[in-house]
Amino acid sequence: MPGISNKGKLMPESPIRKLVPFAEAAKKRGVKVFHLNIGQPDIKTPEVAMEAIRNYSEKVVEYSHSAGNQKYRDKLATYYQKNNIDITASDIIITAGASEAILFAIQSIMDEGDEIIIPEPFYANYNGFATNAGVKVKPIFSHISNGFALPPIAEFEKAVTEKTKAIIVCNPNNPTGYLYSKEELEVLKQIALKYDLYLIADEVYREFVYDGEKHHSVMNLEGLDQHSILIDSVSKRYSACGFRIGCLISKNKQVMATAMKFAQARLSPPSFGQVAAEAALETPASYFTEVVDEYIQRRDVVVQSINKIEGAYCPNPKGAFYVVAKLPIKDSDHFCQWLLEDFAFENQTVMCAPASGFYSTKGYGKDEIRISYVLNTGDLRQSMKILEEALKVYPGRI
Amino acid sequence: MPGISNKGKLMPESPIRKLVPFAEAAKKRGVKVFHLNIGQPDIKTPEVAMEAIRNYSEKVVEYSHSAGNQKYRDKLATYYQKNNIDITASDIIITAGASEAILFAIQSIMDEGDEIIIPEPFYANYNGFATNAGVKVKPIFSHISNGFALPPIAEFEKAVTEKTKAIIVCNPNNPTGYLYSKEELEVLKQIALKYDLYLIADEVYREFVYDGEKHHSVMNLEGLDQHSILIDSVSKRYSACGFRIGCLISKNKQVMATAMKFAQARLSPPSFGQVAAEAALETPASYFTEVVDEYIQRRDVVVQSINKIEGAYCPNPKGAFYVVAKLPIKDSDHFCQWLLEDFAFENQTVMCAPASGFYSTKGYGKDEIRISYVLNTGDLRQSMKILEEALKVYPGRI
Repeated sequence: MPGISNKGKLMPESPIRKLVPFAEAAKKRGVKVFHLNIGQPDIKTPEVAMEAIRNYSEKVVEYSHSAGNQKYRDKLATYYQKNNIDITASDIIITAGASEAILFAIQSIMDEGDEIIIPEPFYANYNGFATNAGVKVKPIFSHISNGFALPPIAEFEKAVTEKTKAIIVCNPNNPTGYLYSKEELEVLKQIALKYDLYLIADEVYREFVYDGEKHHSVMNLEGLDQHSILIDSVSKRYSACGFRIGCLISKNKQVMATAMKFAQARLSPPSFGQVAAEAALETPASYFTEVVDEYIQRRDVVVQSINKIEGAYCPNPKGAFYVVAKLPIKDSDHFCQWLLEDFAFENQTVMCAPASGFYSTKGYGKDEIRISYVLNTGDLRQSMKILEEALKVYPGRI
Repeated sequence: MPGISNKGKLMPESPIRKLVPFAEAAKKRGVKVFHLNIGQPDIKTPEVAMEAIRNYSEKVVEYSHSAGNQKYRDKLATYYQKNNIDITASDIIITAGASEAILFAIQSIMDEGDEIIIPEPFYANYNGFATNAGVKVKPIFSHISNGFALPPIAEFEKAVTEKTKAIIVCNPNNPTGYLYSKEELEVLKQIALKYDLYLIADEVYREFVYDGEKHHSVMNLEGLDQHSILIDSVSKRYSACGFRIGCLISKNKQVMATAMKFAQARLSPPSFGQVAAEAALETPASYFTEVVDEYIQRRDVVVQSINKIEGAYCPNPKGAFYVVAKLPIKDSDHFCQWLLEDFAFENQTVMCAPASGFYSTKGYGKDEIRISYVLNTGDLRQSMKILEEALKVYPGRI
């Protein structure tokens, strides 16, 4: 029997999905499971997008341009301009979600054996994309005690080698919710320029910024045009994960021409998704006000509840819809599985993501979990109660 | 300024798209261009699929399962069973078109430096996917004089090295339209078993088989369960290229488990496309009868017209909707560009794909072009007339 690839063997399993069989077993036993483990919001997709799909009238569902429909890219450029990000349609390649945009970025600028610096904890699938491309992740440790702020510049400089090609940050951050300040982005810019690295920013949570804070885009760092690459997606913005529409943006023409070759090889991004995403650009501002208000309430429930638990700690992040919380436990992988396998409170339990899967360094995040606050406040309150009760009886508590 | 990857530099440009600027310029001059260059059919997408999209009623467009919706996979398995291909839902991973399925297959079984054997001419994007994965293509020459039949087994054996991991065939073939016989598939099976290689079959044109011939699937080769991988797509079957829905199928559990890790890293295939593709499974049989009848007429127009041109030759393929024709020219790249730049007949011209882009071996296919017969018979007759007139005056004629 022929074998599989080394790359395939090395590909990490999703830290979120490996607990799925335990959740399914719990449900079979009649236990209700609150899903705090995934970034699938319960928010409605804007009606204007759904209407466009219901009114779809083309007779032949054709390939679109490999870079995406011109009409969609033109309108999308306007969205960025409204957000003070000065780009045009020709700086955009539409992709199958941010996932494909990350893949195109990595493939266009890195070869097997090259290195990418990522502050950890980080979005677990960055590991997958790096493994896929044979690229080595050099993590920079960011600490829960200061809310996962950017590590000092010296840490980055220590990680740079001649193999380093890029730094990637997610801003606001998944899994920590951390929102990078203008000053932190300036630090990243300095490093990128000094060592001639690309700075890739995954800004899919741009709209999810709280407490009057402001989001700063990588595209607005002056003098960094040739080094900056923006990763984006409509998945979270419009609660439209199933559209599979994202994009890759850069003013570096060589990067874009190279990414286009990868884009042409896969022919085109999804046509229906592009139609819905184009229509979604007409989503009224009130939609976002309501959604942001809702997420602030949800975050507050989670952060306040956790901080009331003895021995637990949760920073109060300013963006996205995740928190990484520290719990008085030895092993979050075991704890999250135990919650599903051996625990129930009022015949209910919670599914969380062990934070270990968001660290590249082995052994980190063992006393941390990621919580996605994508449920309504009632369910979140109950979920936090369950977590509190669980920690009272969990045998692996420290 | 930071550079781009070697892989990115090596990525081939699409042989179909590189002439696009010349076609656009021709249109600007007021010349009508008949597009024989792409596999975008003009056939209507089945109404039953369009209706499903217009009736889409979910409130949140969520991620689907990474392997695709269970409901769609269940129904899709039934489609294969009806086609005498005995698989179940668990043997299927839904992908963003056949493109992603090919990528998953290559990544799951091959590492950088490995080799894949492909009879040439072959679908140009196989080159892109191989380059992307750092895999070397070992072409086996198939000849227009016998209609691009499978080369003798000895040719394959000469190409096998210890780095060889797989053979890929497209059946019916793009770009040649060649339909592999049961005997030819048995030859491939022998080689796969003897050298322990995967046999990947891209069967996206399964329905497009003419003159009473029968399609034979790789999945029906007895004793090859652990070696066979099927690539499929709804793009051509339902004239639904924009759905971006394909699939990867294998009974080899290790391959599927590995491919699932790549599938999870990109989260999920498009949700709207899956809904439309599921509904398309209810397409009445009459749709295919009509489409096949139409394509037979189109093929006959093209094949007969070309064979009437002095010095030209076109085999009469039994499947897909392409032919590779030999013309009395020195350089088809130059000829195809000249057609757009310097020629018009009755203020019209044709856009074809130079066959050189479908060969891996440099210098091959210089006197051949690929024609996609995706236009109605009237337009095809006129296109063939244009080609005939062009060859009368083309300065590079031999």
